[in-house]
Amino acid sequence: MLDCTYRVQIPHHVGQLARVAKAIADGDGIIGDVVTVSLGREHTIRDITIEVRDGAQAGRIAELVGALDGVTVLWHQDRALLRHDGGKLRIQACAPVRTVQEMRDVYTPGVARVCTAIAAQPELAARYTMISRSVAICTNGTRVLGLGNIGTVASMPVMEGKAVFYDQFAGISAMPILIDTTDVDTFVETVVRIAPTFGGIHLEDISAPECFEIEHRLIERLPQPVMHDDVHGTAVVSLAAAIVACRYAGLELRAATVGQLGLGAAGYGIAALMVDGGVKRVIAFDPLEASHARARAHGVEIATMEQVMAEADLVVATTGRPGLIEPGMIRPGQVILALTNPDPEIYPEVAEAAGAAFAADGRSVNNVVGYPGIFRGALQAGAAGINVEMKLAAARAIAELAPEGELVPHALDQGVHDAVAEAVKTAAATSGIARPDRATTAF
Amino acid sequence: MLDCTYRVQIPHHVGQLARVAKAIADGDGIIGDVVTVSLGREHTIRDITIEVRDGAQAGRIAELVGALDGVTVLWHQDRALLRHDGGKLRIQACAPVRTVQEMRDVYTPGVARVCTAIAAQPELAARYTMISRSVAICTNGTRVLGLGNIGTVASMPVMEGKAVFYDQFAGISAMPILIDTTDVDTFVETVVRIAPTFGGIHLEDISAPECFEIEHRLIERLPQPVMHDDVHGTAVVSLAAAIVACRYAGLELRAATVGQLGLGAAGYGIAALMVDGGVKRVIAFDPLEASHARARAHGVEIATMEQVMAEADLVVATTGRPGLIEPGMIRPGQVILALTNPDPEIYPEVAEAAGAAFAADGRSVNNVVGYPGIFRGALQAGAAGINVEMKLAAARAIAELAPEGELVPHALDQGVHDAVAEAVKTAAATSGIARPDRATTAF
Repeated sequence: MLDCTYRVQIPHHVGQLARVAKAIADGDGIIGDVVTVSLGREHTIRDITIEVRDGAQAGRIAELVGALDGVTVLWHQDRALLRHDGGKLRIQACAPVRTVQEMRDVYTPGVARVCTAIAAQPELAARYTMISRSVAICTNGTRVLGLGNIGTVASMPVMEGKAVFYDQFAGISAMPILIDTTDVDTFVETVVRIAPTFGGIHLEDISAPECFEIEHRLIERLPQPVMHDDVHGTAVVSLAAAIVACRYAGLELRAATVGQLGLGAAGYGIAALMVDGGVKRVIAFDPLEASHARARAHGVEIATMEQVMAEADLVVATTGRPGLIEPGMIRPGQVILALTNPDPEIYPEVAEAAGAAFAADGRSVNNVVGYPGIFRGALQAGAAGINVEMKLAAARAIAELAPEGELVPHALDQGVHDAVAEAVKTAAATSGIARPDRATTAF
Repeated sequence: MLDCTYRVQIPHHVGQLARVAKAIADGDGIIGDVVTVSLGREHTIRDITIEVRDGAQAGRIAELVGALDGVTVLWHQDRALLRHDGGKLRIQACAPVRTVQEMRDVYTPGVARVCTAIAAQPELAARYTMISRSVAICTNGTRVLGLGNIGTVASMPVMEGKAVFYDQFAGISAMPILIDTTDVDTFVETVVRIAPTFGGIHLEDISAPECFEIEHRLIERLPQPVMHDDVHGTAVVSLAAAIVACRYAGLELRAATVGQLGLGAAGYGIAALMVDGGVKRVIAFDPLEASHARARAHGVEIATMEQVMAEADLVVATTGRPGLIEPGMIRPGQVILALTNPDPEIYPEVAEAAGAAFAADGRSVNNVVGYPGIFRGALQAGAAGINVEMKLAAARAIAELAPEGELVPHALDQGVHDAVAEAVKTAAATSGIARPDRATTAF
């Protein structure tokens, strides 16, 4: 699937855009945004975004539209490639240096006084450097989106994307750090060595089970918050979605039996957070036996797929296997969150037709609503880590702001990020993990 | 020494600022910038910058000024600390994400197409990520400015300052990376692991002799440009200064004997670049015998301090020992660059009184005119390294733009940075080290 932008010159008369839209429909394209680029006396130029299956279809639509009388397709291109030209991040000075005096302030001789002050009193780094409002997004590219192990450099666009949201939604300076190793020890040592540069460590797109060991050891060794987003960020947002879904279905989550299908990074995180959140019984299925001990140790009961489907009131699936749940497996009244992207274990409409009280897929659960606020709250509190209280507070804050009919708020809603940050900051303070002398003043 | 800002409320009459200036002079303060903050009917509020020796003197001046009739000192503070509040760098999105469509472009599903494209054709990373226009400023904080080994975190303000200039003068996204180790192997391994993230590796403030080994091994192992700024950036700017100083003194540098005092990071770099630049004879003195072999291997002749002073036409001193050169050691007609900061081996006016044809100290040789353009040129060329041709081209470009009477252009002169970048880019191409497929298109 592909979003293409077509820059099209169209006669400026009534009914012309309709002709173009008809041609696009004939080519089986789905129209997205239509933006007017220029408005001339005889022609308008518009950027029309069209969702297509592949490049061949994109070319066919360009031909169909271009064949219309008076219409010209100036160019068509993959929107994502266009948007990525030159990269997505920039490291900038907070203020320009305009005068000799300002140069003396930011560099020698002035900077020496700042260095000396920090050397004498290390907590001052939280005030006089970017460290306390920065996060490293560390990956080795071994499990990127649905793409698998594509290596470090090819994963960079995802890391830059995560950093874009950190900037926009939380005012955090997030730096992608590509770590060229698949070895757990080397990964951990590398992050430990560079960790003084950052207020927080965000782990991203690292394959399981290595990711669990890496996160565990980094949490033990580092004084700042460490969080694997694919485990905990996803768990927080999924828990929020589950809270809201249960509300829609009239189910009490704590008293329910929750069934987790798949115990990879996301699945383990979700099952564990359900237990931490006080859910009475959490059962899980994963064909990979190596994943069982970790889940059991966290209070999750291992079961067969049939048991999960038969006994769970709420089923959360993160298996990576589209179509795994057949309609006949649905128990009437069940809540189903089939989160595998882009194609879920069962389509929501199919699940509901088969008797589910409520069903949703991964499109309803965007993990971008989680991590920016979670790290912002943690940094604002100077937290020594991200504990269960903070994660639960984040999930509740997200759930509270879900618009009617949706499972989570939209990621472009700045209010949710602010609310998550505030809830996490408060939870850090009340749970005793905040360190006021490390809290940043820069937000 | 300390630059303080005093925010002062002064009656808005003729002669009032003169009274304030007089009080500051009575307190032995040197006035810098005076900036009007607000202009009221009866009072003006001004920020007056005053250079003082220490905090006690700063307090005394505040009392003297505050004692004037009708004058109030609202506050006074160290300018550098003020400027560093909140840190100096920010990692930002190149463009905000405003719509659902834009979110699909920068993140899933669009980003997956960019990742896939790079996985298939790794050179595309130069186009679609920030990597090709980014530099890591790597340090372990073992030799920071004149402060010595103050550790990683306390060195952060210097690294942020370097990055501020990278942004402003070269449009390079430079990220400080604090590496918490004094061990050469660990430092090298850490940089190698994270190196895929960056188009260039800038080493900074690492103590000698470890810095030489670290740089050497990184150059061998990494495909991108690696440069220790304290060695090569300083050498480039010092060579530029030497070219100009010789011009003022009517000395032909290539035919001259150059004497280098001190073979630390800077001194070795300067002596080596003099040899590379074709200077007929380069002799050097350093009491540390361990420094001799490296210099000899690069064509530098080891000598005593007396020999250097007696035989050299141009003496460059980077010894860290203020006052080392006594007036009696100066040979009439010599050119003296005594670069130790803040107090030189000999003050220029003393050297010239003792017969030097031309003398300058470190204030005339600001290394900020070097590295931003050097790395910009290297990145623009997609260079595999920073070779002698590139360094010599940078030095010549800097020397050419020195204003009459000065040794190097002022760092705030954007023209010098552009000229250095252009010269380095061209030198990379003509010396065969450029890789067009790695060249960034983002500048």
